[in-house]
This record gives sequence, structure tokens and C-alpha cells, in this order.
Amino acid sequence: MVPYTLEGAYLLHQMFRIRWSAWKSLDESRRETLLAGMREVLSGMREEGTSLYSMLGHKGDLMFLHFRPSLDALNAAELKLAQTGLADYLEPAHSYVSVVELGLYESTQRINRMLAERGLQQGSAEWDQAAGEELERSRAAMAPRLFPETPPARYLCFYPMDRRRGEAKNWYQVPLDERARMMHEHGMVGRKYAGIVKQIISGSIGLDDWEWGVDLWADDPVQFKKLIYEMRFDEVSAIYALFGQFFLGIRTQPEQLESLLSGQRA
Amino acid sequence: MVPYTLEGAYLLHQMFRIRWSAWKSLDESRRETLLAGMREVLSGMREEGTSLYSMLGHKGDLMFLHFRPSLDALNAAELKLAQTGLADYLEPAHSYVSVVELGLYESTQRINRMLAERGLQQGSAEWDQAAGEELERSRAAMAPRLFPETPPARYLCFYPMDRRRGEAKNWYQVPLDERARMMHEHGMVGRKYAGIVKQIISGSIGLDDWEWGVDLWADDPVQFKKLIYEMRFDEVSAIYALFGQFFLGIRTQPEQLESLLSGQRA
Amino acid sequence: MVPYTLEGAYLLHQMFRIRWSAWKSLDESRRETLLAGMREVLSGMREEGTSLYSMLGHKGDLMFLHFRPSLDALNAAELKLAQTGLADYLEPAHSYVSVVELGLYESTQRINRMLAERGLQQGSAEWDQAAGEELERSRAAMAPRLFPETPPARYLCFYPMDRRRGEAKNWYQVPLDERARMMHEHGMVGRKYAGIVKQIISGSIGLDDWEWGVDLWADDPVQFKKLIYEMRFDEVSAIYALFGQFFLGIRTQPEQLESLLSGQRA
Amino acid sequence: MVPYTLEGAYLLHQMFRIRWSAWKSLDESRRETLLAGMREVLSGMREEGTSLYSMLGHKGDLMFLHFRPSLDALNAAELKLAQTGLADYLEPAHSYVSVVELGLYESTQRINRMLAERGLQQGSAEWDQAAGEELERSRAAMAPRLFPETPPARYLCFYPMDRRRGEAKNWYQVPLDERARMMHEHGMVGRKYAGIVKQIISGSIGLDDWEWGVDLWADDPVQFKKLIYEMRFDEVSAIYALFGQFFLGIRTQPEQLESLLSGQRA
Amino acid sequence: MVPYTLEGAYLLHQMFRIRWSAWKSLDESRRETLLAGMREVLSGMREEGTSLYSMLGHKGDLMFLHFRPSLDALNAAELKLAQTGLADYLEPAHSYVSVVELGLYESTQRINRMLAERGLQQGSAEWDQAAGEELERSRAAMAPRLFPETPPARYLCFYPMDRRRGEAKNWYQVPLDERARMMHEHGMVGRKYAGIVKQIISGSIGLDDWEWGVDLWADDPVQFKKLIYEMRFDEVSAIYALFGQFFLGIRTQPEQLESLLSGQRA
Repeated sequence: MVPYTLEGAYLLHQMFRIRWSAWKSLDESRRETLLAGMREVLSGMREEGTSLYSMLGHKGDLMFLHFRPSLDALNAAELKLAQTGLADYLEPAHSYVSVVELGLYESTQRINRMLAERGLQQGSAEWDQAAGEELERSRAAMAPRLFPETPPARYLCFYPMDRRRGEAKNWYQVPLDERARMMHEHGMVGRKYAGIVKQIISGSIGLDDWEWGVDLWADDPVQFKKLIYEMRFDEVSAIYALFGQFFLGIRTQPEQLESLLSGQRA
Repeated sequence: MVPYTLEGAYLLHQMFRIRWSAWKSLDESRRETLLAGMREVLSGMREEGTSLYSMLGHKGDLMFLHFRPSLDALNAAELKLAQTGLADYLEPAHSYVSVVELGLYESTQRINRMLAERGLQQGSAEWDQAAGEELERSRAAMAPRLFPETPPARYLCFYPMDRRRGEAKNWYQVPLDERARMMHEHGMVGRKYAGIVKQIISGSIGLDDWEWGVDLWADDPVQFKKLIYEMRFDEVSAIYALFGQFFLGIRTQPEQLESLLSGQRA
Repeated sequence: MVPYTLEGAYLLHQMFRIRWSAWKSLDESRRETLLAGMREVLSGMREEGTSLYSMLGHKGDLMFLHFRPSLDALNAAELKLAQTGLADYLEPAHSYVSVVELGLYESTQRINRMLAERGLQQGSAEWDQAAGEELERSRAAMAPRLFPETPPARYLCFYPMDRRRGEAKNWYQVPLDERARMMHEHGMVGRKYAGIVKQIISGSIGLDDWEWGVDLWADDPVQFKKLIYEMRFDEVSAIYALFGQFFLGIRTQPEQLESLLSGQRA
Repeated sequence: MVPYTLEGAYLLHQMFRIRWSAWKSLDESRRETLLAGMREVLSGMREEGTSLYSMLGHKGDLMFLHFRPSLDALNAAELKLAQTGLADYLEPAHSYVSVVELGLYESTQRINRMLAERGLQQGSAEWDQAAGEELERSRAAMAPRLFPETPPARYLCFYPMDRRRGEAKNWYQVPLDERARMMHEHGMVGRKYAGIVKQIISGSIGLDDWEWGVDLWADDPVQFKKLIYEMRFDEVSAIYALFGQFFLGIRTQPEQLESLLSGQRA
Repeated sequence: MVPYTLEGAYLLHQMFRIRWSAWKSLDESRRETLLAGMREVLSGMREEGTSLYSMLGHKGDLMFLHFRPSLDALNAAELKLAQTGLADYLEPAHSYVSVVELGLYESTQRINRMLAERGLQQGSAEWDQAAGEELERSRAAMAPRLFPETPPARYLCFYPMDRRRGEAKNWYQVPLDERARMMHEHGMVGRKYAGIVKQIISGSIGLDDWEWGVDLWADDPVQFKKLIYEMRFDEVSAIYALFGQFFLGIRTQPEQLESLLSGQRA
């Protein structure tokens, strides 16, 4: 019933609003000092897996996206940011905690068939151990996808989502083979956008308020709309997908923060 | 299944509350300086596609509506506004990001029929290329609707909306021909209001929290109510439309901002 | 399908919380100056259609109810209030924009029958013109209900509402005759409260977040409960009514504002 | 269809958060002055029907519960509290307005049978008058329940609730006899807790955002959980009850306010 | 119909955001004084059943979890924390009140069978007394689970939940035996995580806004996701579980608070 999953890097999305009035009231040299401090912190964090985005609209002005090997490292990152002088001019608006997840529907079917053919009984200790060994092999092969580099594309679209558990339509009561078939069709649409939209799926059950987080990167933001709209007609999305808020950002380098905070979009 | 769409200008709606107490506590000359600065910025922005509305009620006092060729230009516009001295007296209350969209239900049916008659197979590379060429021809013809001037009418009504994906009634599971028929009937109602209510539809899937934004302009605000009420009985709206908040504004020129901020509605 | 409606005065409900700590910290003479200013503004506005209510509970302390001939006049009223010195001690908590509406279910049936008997075709230009002429006659006759005086009763109950568009029960898919029958029965209950509860219905589709606003006035607030409870068993309310928040106020004259702001309820 | 009801005292629940930082920053003598003022006001209000509770968690720190003979007296009470110096250190967090209500399902059935036997026609003027006379007799007999003393128990649990009006399950479409039967079974569960949990039901249709308010008092707070859990399996609660937020408090006398505000729970 | 339950310690979860700007603006010696005060209070509270967690994201920075024998002791704990100087730099963000609960589905079935075999009639005084005696015996045996030590694991996941009362699927209308069967299967999944995830269930009907609170502890936070995801396919969770927000924390000792507030995660 339950598809196997592999987990990799932990993710923290942090959205902030800039306290513009307070920021603008600082004198030039104070602003430069604060910027220099943040630039230094961010340059270091960039190496560890942090990237920065300028957001549109009232939901936030800046989004920090952190990839880290552990929750503790994420906590350390947010604590370190909070210590910068510039953080006094940023107001937390939203955040999201999740962990990179590969949902192995097809591997689950393959492994289950294989183990059943070996005569193992599902749920037995032998089954669990054999399945675990198979997954371990996958984990090594999939390491680059489990611990990804932040894609370099200019635009980021992030949103959380759930699978529907309605009174009539309930994802968690659909047989595994049906779910695998729908996920496969869903993946086929994604594949049409290969090279255009890069996608990283993270799981957040037990970590945050929705079941999954979706990050999309593209150099043309209309492609976010085209991809998600096309997918909305997939059986799995049409019937079983529930979406949270959408957060949109434009990639910004630590070196560009000064011009952004002077009101200039490069 | 998926109707073709064409995209044009990006839109950002920004709603602000005026910090009246702080504003009123300024002395006359300071207010004049701030107004002059904003007037200058807005006059320049008016050329680029920005218009201003005085809002009713607690949801906001001022709405800026920006049409721009890119997300980056929208981001630049909001950053520029944030740098004005007057912005210290404006509190962000809401916003919406979208892109002008023409949903080509009838063209989709026509193109699909044409390509099928040519013997092409839907989803094949040939089909996609031929459909793309057809769309490119439409794009040129429809440029004025994709990159519209802001209509000059006195009143603006903006609201976001979704198509319902309920457990029993689900827009994304209705066959294309059925959807096209319902959209056609829906359009017939709109046509009755030609010359009375001007409408611009924008798509926001992947850009903001709803699927579409609707902007209506009229010189008599009762017509907003009459149009939307009449449409509510359309099959497509009655069953499949879900509405967000409604934002209502009265067109205000940069030159009128001073009298508005002195408490006078012309 | 769509019942005819007539529209009259525009309404703005404004709910404010009093900033008690700041207000109480003022010295006596400053308070008197601010009160005198507000009294003068309100006395003038009373002539134009503004009334004032003291609210119960945390949803607000003061409600201003403005009836005006246009949206512009409403906007002018809220801007004028915002300029008073007292407004610095009022915090906007909620508001609602709507327009007095008479939903002419029975007239619609009557006019439609009459025009059909004349051989006109529904939706044709002739039909629309003839119906428009009939409505024009009604408008004159109904002017007092379209541009009402504020009822003098001591208590006001305001709430917004929608008609349900559920997956199984959908008001906008019920035939006109059925809707007219249910609205007639609904009206019969209201008639039992004639002289006890005075009601003004306003439409807010395209103007604010719900479809209608309901204002009830009575000299005994238990009658609000009795009326709405009894109506809740009407077919139209039981099945098709969705309610927003309820706002309750006690009529207060501009001259009573001073004692109210000193903590005394007359 | 509509059960008769009797109404008694009006209720206002007021929940406040303590502004601890500001309060703690006052010097000892100022705190003593403010406490003395509040103690005096509260001691007087205690006679009029006001009681005080210390709340748990972030939903509030103090709850004032006022029973009064009229809305005006409730408004006077909240205005008087707002004038105390201590009120500057209290932040309104929530409130609820309602009126003590006895829902006379069984009396309604009895009276209706009796009047029908007398040959009166339901809804006729004779019927209404005869029913009114019967109710008047009940009102006198039930005065102690309509204008109750605040129960002395140590713990208070307050929550608002609605009866469900779903698309398939709709309380307001269930025949009166069915509703009376379910309410009777519901009452049987309550009776098992006689002497353990004291309950006061108030109606709030037209007065606040839910249809009813429920106040429970007990000397052992686990009994709130046991009572409500057991009732949740009643047909009327299982199917037709929708609950709002739950507010929990510990009875505090005016004399104990000083120690509470010094951080001590007796 | 109603399963027996046993109740133990009361729980209060308190989530706070750190007021970083104000905190960082203090001089070193003031910070040290405040930290010393909080350390002392927390060291004492640790003995009484209080533990501390560093939270991820904007939902809060610090979570205090208190186990106490009574509501009064919980109220005393929150009042004591509020008196610390450090509390001025903490902003209440969320909280939850509940009581440790053992839901005795299997014992209920066993006791009911036993009493029925003795010829007792369900709901009679004899039945209630005999059942009460059986429960009393269980209570003693289960004391360690009713008044648990805080598990020492590094990560905590807390969330509230309800059982669904939908129009078609309603937990409170499922026969006891069916519910017991589903709860048993649900427990079987939990048992697979014995030694990996430690779980404490608390009841909050009548105490807070959801029906239950769930606390999970683990040394590997991915196990939260794996456990809850696997359970989501259980019949009882798939159909009948509704979840609130999820709160995630990393265990922090009072001695580590200083380094945490200097921005360091050990």
C-alpha cells in the first residue's frame, strides 16, 4: 500500500518582508555596514546551499532557500541569519520545512514483485530487510537527486500541496497500482518540460503543515503556469491535488542585495 | 484536453492602507515634498502602464495597478514605489501577480480539428510544432489584447477566481468540447455588456494563490453587479466558479493624489 | 433565469475599535477639541445619511453606517472621517460596501409573462427594451425603498450573506419559478415581523466579498434572534443561505459620543 | 417547525491578553493603584453579574463573563472596564455576545398538541396568542434558569456552536418531532452529569457569529472532556453539531487579581 | 458506544517567537542577567515536568512543553514564565492545552463483554459502578503511561487532530467494534516504530480547539514522516483523521539557552 521513499537534504524556505521605512531612515554608512555583514554571511551560506530570491507582492520581499544535511543545520542557518544586523530590517512572513523526497512508485512495484517472486511475505522481517537493501542500492545511485545543487535558473516558484482525503475521493484509499499509474502519467507531463522547468519535490508530513513542497525553477516564468495548468488536467492532479499558497521569486546574488535594497532590480 | 493559451503583459495589483495618523502629523511642507516625489514617480510610471485607484473600505485605501512586459519590470516598479518618501505612509495590505491570458477554447478546437485532418497525431512533435505555428499567427493578431492599455473608465473591480475541483463537480475532468461550449455561452453574456464593462482576464496559476484574476472597468459601478450576477447563472459560473475577495477602486490621477490625501474626493 | 433588480443608495458600513489607552491619555481640553470636531462632522453627515452605533465585543466599538447616492460620495465620507482628529484614536476593524437592492422575483415573473404574451422573444432587443420600461416605472414607485431613511430603531444587526453554490444544492441552478416561490415564503416570515423588525437588503456582488448585505433594525434585540431563527427553517434559508459575521450596534447620536468616550452608556 | 424559546439575561464573554512587559515595567505603587481601581470596579460588577477567570494558553489570560438584563447594560459594563487604568494593560483577544435561551422542544410539542386539540389553526392569530400565553406561564416558572446566578465552580469551559446545514445533513430540514427526540436523548446524557457539570445555553443568532454559546462549569476539568466526548456520540451532536473555539478558565476573585498579576496561581 | 478513557497529566504546549531585534540591542551584562534568571526558573521547572525545544521556521522559535498534575499547576507554570525578564523578549505565537489520555478501545470491549455476561444492563448504575472499578484497576497499572516522563529524544513533532464528522463519513456513527478494529490496526503500525518513535496521546475535547494532541519524539526526524505517512494509509487515518498545524522542535537544555540566543545551534 505504502510506496517506498528516499529522503535526502532538508529544506527551509524563509520569506521576509523588508521594513522599508526603518531601513531607509538609516544613514548611508550604517546601511553599508549592515549590507557588508549580510553579504559576508550569505557568501558563506551560498557554499553551504543557501540561495536568495526577490519576491513579488505583499507576501514577502526576500526569500532565502536553504538546503542542508540535517534539521540542526537548518536551525543553525536561521539562527545565524537572525544575528545579522540586517535581520532587524526583515520581518518573518512565512516559512516551510521539508526534506527532499523521491517517491518510488515504480520501484516499489518492481521490488514488491521481485520479493513476492522470491516467496517472501509482505510485512515480514525478511521482506523488510530485503526491501531495505534494495532501497540502499537506489539511495547511492540517486544521491545527486537526493542532495541537489540549487538550480541556477532565474525564477523560482514554490508551493505546498496535499493529496485529497475527501469523503468520496481519497488518495490514501486508492490501490497502489492505480496510484502508480496516475503518478506515471503525471511524470510524463513533467518530462515534456525537461530542460525548461526543473523540479525538486520535498516531503513535509510531520515536518510542516502540508504533505509536500514543490519547487520549480525556470528562466521563463510563463512556463510555471503552462506546466502546472497542463498538469491540472492529469487525473492525479485534477482529482487528488490540493494546493497551498504560491510564492514567486527572482534569483538574486548576495552581491546584488545592495542594489535591491536601494530599490533597483537589475 | 488542455486549451491553448496566449500570454501577454504581466500584472501586479498592489493594495495599501494609508497611515493617516502619521501622515496628518506631518507639517505642510513635508507633505508637499513627499507628494511631489510620488507625483513625479507616478507620472513616469503612468507612461509605463501604472494606474492608481482610491479604494473603499478597510481592505485598502490605494490600489496601484501595473502592466509590464516582464516579472522583472514589475519587481522594479514595486521596488521604485517603496523608495518614495510617501511609501512610508502606506501599509501593504494585499497584492496579486498574474499575466494577461487569452484562453483560446474555440481556436483550440479549430486547430485540433485542422491538425487531425492533416493526419497529425496529437502530442507528437509534428503536432506540437504545427500548433505552435498556428498560435504564433494568433499572437501577432491579438497583440493589442495581450498588451492592453489600461481602460480609462472611472471604476475598477478586481477579483481572483478558481475553477472548482470538487468531489462531484470538477472542471478539469469535463471534456474540452463541453468546456468550450460553456465558455462560449459565458462569453455571450459578456458581449451584452460590450461598451459598458471592459474586461481583462489574467492567468495566475504558478504565480499567485488563485488560478485567474479578473479586472472589470465601468463608468457605472452597478454594472459590475449586474454583469457578475447575470453570469452567476451561466452553467460555467454557477457550477464551476469559486471567487476570492473583491477589490473596488475609483480612478485617481497622480495630480489628484494631493487632494485625496487631504481628504477630498473630486 | 435572472430576476430583475432595482438599485438605489450605496451603503458603506465602517467598524472601528477605539484606541482607549491613547484616548484616555489625552488631557481634558484636547479630548474636548477632538470631540467637538467629530460632533460637527457627524452632525453634517447625519443630514447626508450617516448614523452611528456603539458596538458590543471585540469586533469593534463604533460602527458608522453611510447611505449615499454614489460610490464617490461614500469615498468622500470615509476620507472626511479620516481627516478628523478623533480618527487618530479609531482603528479600522471591518467594513462593507453594497448598494440597496430590490430583488424583483414576482415582478420578474409578471413582466416575463406579459412580454411573452405580447409575443416578444426573451433576450431580444425588443424584450430588453420593454422590460427596461417596466422596470423604470417600478423604480419611480419604489424610490422611497431604494433611497431609504435610516430607520430610527435603537438596535442594528448587520451581516453579509451568500446563496449556496454547492455540489448538490446550487441556488443558481434552481429554476426561476422555484426561486420565486421560496423567496415568497421567505418574505411571508418577514411580514410577520412588520413594525417589529425593519429590514434593508443591499446587493454587493462585484462590490464586496459576499453577495448581499442585510441590515435589521429593532427596538428589542431579541427580535433579531427570533426573526433569523424562524427564517432559518424556510426552505431558501435552510438550504441555500450562507452567513458571514454578525455585527451588532446600539444607536448613538453625535451628541452622545462624548459620554460614550467617557465610558458611559446612556 | 420552529420550537418555542424563552430568553433571559444577556451575556458578554470578554477575553483579554495581559501586556506583561508593560505591566511589569510599572513601579510597585503604580501597580497597586491600578489594581485597587480594578478591584473596586470588579467588586461592584460582581454584584451585577460579572465573574473573572484566569485563562490557559495564548488565546487569552483573563476572561470576564458578564450576565446583564439588557444589551445596554452589557455595553455599559464593557465601557466601564475600558475606563479602568488596568485596562491599558489588557489587549482584547476575543468576545462573545448571546442571551440565555431555553429551547422548549418538549413544551413546543405539548403546546402544539394542546392548541390543535382546541381546534386552533397553526400560524393563526388565535394560535399565536394562545401559545404566547402558555409561554408567559413558562417564563415565570423558569425565571431562575433564565436569569441564573453564575455557578460557583472552579473551572469554566465556553464554546460557540452551530447546527449543521450541510448538503446532505441539514438540521433545519429535520421534522420537529425528530429534532425533539434527538434533543431529548442529548439531554439524557447531560442529566448523567447533574451535580458534576453545570450548563448554561445561550442563543446568539443575530447577535454574534455562531448560533449558540455553551458555558460549562465543573470542579474537575476532566469532566468537561468526558461530558462533551460522551455527547459527541449522540445522534444530534455526531451529525449536526459544529463547534467553534474552546475557551478554558479558572475562577478568580477580584481579591486574587493582585497575586495573579504577580504571577501566582493560588 | 463510548470507549472508556483514562486521564493523567495535563499538558501545555507554549510556542514563542523571539524578539530578536530587541534582544540583540541589550548589552552583554543585561542579557546575562536575563539568561541567568530564565536558566534558574527552567532548571526548577525541568524537575516539575517542563522541557524546551528550539523550533524551525516562522511558526515560533521556542517551544516549552509542560506536564503537570493539574490545570492550576499549568496556569502557575505559564504565569511564572511570564514573570521572567527574558519573557519580555518572547512573543506568544501559539499554545495547546490537553490531558494525557489512554483510549481503551480493547479494554472497553473486554469490560463490556464481561459485564454483559454478568447480566448487568448497560447504562445502569450497577454497570457504571462495575465498569468504574475495572477502570480503577487499569488506572493503577497504567500510572507510568498516564504520568509519563518527557522522552529524552532529540526531536519533537506536535500536532492536534480531530476525527472526521463528515456528511458521509462520520467516526462518531461507526459502531464501537468497527472503531476498535480500526484502532487496533492503527496501533499495529505504531508498534513497528517501537524504540524509534515514542508517542504520547492527549485528549483536548473541552480543553482546546481540536479533539486530540499528538506528541512524537525521535532521534531521527525522518521517522516522523515515515510513521505518519505509513499511518495515513490506515483505514482510520485515511478516512477519519483531520490534522491541524505541525510544530517541530529540537530539544534544548536550559544550559544551552544562552548559546541558542547568541545564534548557535550546538
